[in-house]
Amino acid sequence: MGNRLGTRTLTFSRGPRITSRYTLVGPREGKGPYALDFHEILADDSLGQKTAEKTERLMLELAIAKTLEQHDTSIDELHFLIAGDLLNQITTSCLAASTHAVPFIGIYGACSTFAEALGLGAVLLQGDFAEQVLIGTASHYQTAERQFRYPIELNVQHIRTNQVTVTGAAAAILSFADRGPRITHATFGTVVDMGLKDPHDMGSAMAPAAFRTIKEHLADTGRTLADYDIVLTGDLGRQGSKMLRLLLEREGFEGLERLQDGGSQIFGDWQPVGAGGSGAACVAVMTLGYILNALESAKAKRVLIVATGALLSALTVLQGESIPCIAHAIALEQ
Amino acid sequence: MGNRLGTRTLTFSRGPRITSRYTLVGPREGKGPYALDFHEILADDSLGQKTAEKTERLMLELAIAKTLEQHDTSIDELHFLIAGDLLNQITTSCLAASTHAVPFIGIYGACSTFAEALGLGAVLLQGDFAEQVLIGTASHYQTAERQFRYPIELNVQHIRTNQVTVTGAAAAILSFADRGPRITHATFGTVVDMGLKDPHDMGSAMAPAAFRTIKEHLADTGRTLADYDIVLTGDLGRQGSKMLRLLLEREGFEGLERLQDGGSQIFGDWQPVGAGGSGAACVAVMTLGYILNALESAKAKRVLIVATGALLSALTVLQGESIPCIAHAIALEQ
Repeated sequence: MGNRLGTRTLTFSRGPRITSRYTLVGPREGKGPYALDFHEILADDSLGQKTAEKTERLMLELAIAKTLEQHDTSIDELHFLIAGDLLNQITTSCLAASTHAVPFIGIYGACSTFAEALGLGAVLLQGDFAEQVLIGTASHYQTAERQFRYPIELNVQHIRTNQVTVTGAAAAILSFADRGPRITHATFGTVVDMGLKDPHDMGSAMAPAAFRTIKEHLADTGRTLADYDIVLTGDLGRQGSKMLRLLLEREGFEGLERLQDGGSQIFGDWQPVGAGGSGAACVAVMTLGYILNALESAKAKRVLIVATGALLSALTVLQGESIPCIAHAIALEQ
Repeated sequence: MGNRLGTRTLTFSRGPRITSRYTLVGPREGKGPYALDFHEILADDSLGQKTAEKTERLMLELAIAKTLEQHDTSIDELHFLIAGDLLNQITTSCLAASTHAVPFIGIYGACSTFAEALGLGAVLLQGDFAEQVLIGTASHYQTAERQFRYPIELNVQHIRTNQVTVTGAAAAILSFADRGPRITHATFGTVVDMGLKDPHDMGSAMAPAAFRTIKEHLADTGRTLADYDIVLTGDLGRQGSKMLRLLLEREGFEGLERLQDGGSQIFGDWQPVGAGGSGAACVAVMTLGYILNALESAKAKRVLIVATGALLSALTVLQGESIPCIAHAIALEQ
């Protein structure tokens, strides 16, 4: 297959690029160490909306509007909108999509959703199915708590391995315009289920999925971790990141100093966030903010994004199912 | 763009085909007028599982296993699994995917999910990203009732415009093997929200989305309804089908006698199912059962599938949001 390496990793020879981007985050994320990398920090996490779900939707709509504005592209010139989020039936994305007359591809990959969108967007461009693709995702601490855990009014204490859902939204336009980093490869992950069942330690459940995808990506491309300036896992958090390092070390991988983790880094050590951040917006804002700034300022030339997702629901937890996990890897080049 | 018509409808010149398929349905669907078109009718709708969610997952796994068996393909030879379902966080698909070591693309389009999978699968084949793609979906009356409406134990009476979620699962392999109908076009739909809010009449909410996608598809391809032997909408049900006809008539479309609807037809008039069937499995089993049999026996030469989806959640209904809807069209040829 022309576009492939005889493997499962896809290669994008035509060089689809991320040619416009916008990230916005909540006040807590805006107090973290990457605050300067985000385009907008919300003064409050409600945006004056009556429900957190409305806020989440509005954040995604704002990110989309700003991305379009920066690209000087109208919605009519886009060929697809690929979006997904954490809410039941991805209603944030569906409601936001209803305001734009562009073909909509709804996806779900939990916190890996953003990488799935990047990969599918690159597929549509490389395969000559589109010239401009819009992608987006969002998450909100309060909507995720309500849906997956406890109403925030109960003030249930978090434990050390818990992660905090990032409040934020991100959108990007992928095209062949002559700017922005190229998307060179996508390694779509397989679902890995190690039998772990603790929804309060999703990092440990996701680490084996990240390990597997990284291993496959490196084998497929003949690269090592050191061929990337940064390998950014999505939101393993501190616990999951530790496990990923152990798994890679055990199999003799080198270049572990290139590993970074969006979830572990988006909040400062001084912030009470358990093992770190998570949520569909986490890897999205860290990639479109921090990583793209690093690529554009030539602080990094080549980066691998490994977005991880825990594919559970509140119901599967109650029914005693284990937590299947996934990780999609996307290679970006300056 | 080579693969396009200068429009949003994608054309698949390389002729990706549906080269293996399997449909299974519950006992109620097995008493309907299309019973002979399905590959398997379950004797009971539990399959001996403790929860309906486990049954739904098992149905999807069975459909996948049988499709692989019939194709004489092992899971290792597949390049992607594209799947989605109605459950929160598409857990049926995620859990089923965890048993297969194949790159997983999770999607959500409510009852239009199957057409989204067909379209994306064709994109991956046409664009030379894969040689064999597995797609699948499932739904179950009891899981949908529990999640979207009322626990079935309450025995809440349905009203005339209510639809009944189809219990069933379907899977297919898309490839370039020399058999099965070709997937010639995909028109991914835009999200249409007419402000309707009644979750007990999703047919009326979805009809404008079906109308819009049909109109775009015909304009893009220069075809008329009469160029298709059958135009099968997904699950508009009797109410939504009536509305679609009115919308098409009003704008002077001809060939309305080619319209059929999976939701209106899967159950017999003698079955107490309100306005008909719905659910992710509805259009999937009707397409891979009834339509593919018609194409393979040359009763039809060219068919347009227009799978519709109501993009609501139980929470958006409670929060007073309207129901955004979508329809994806896929053209199949003998």
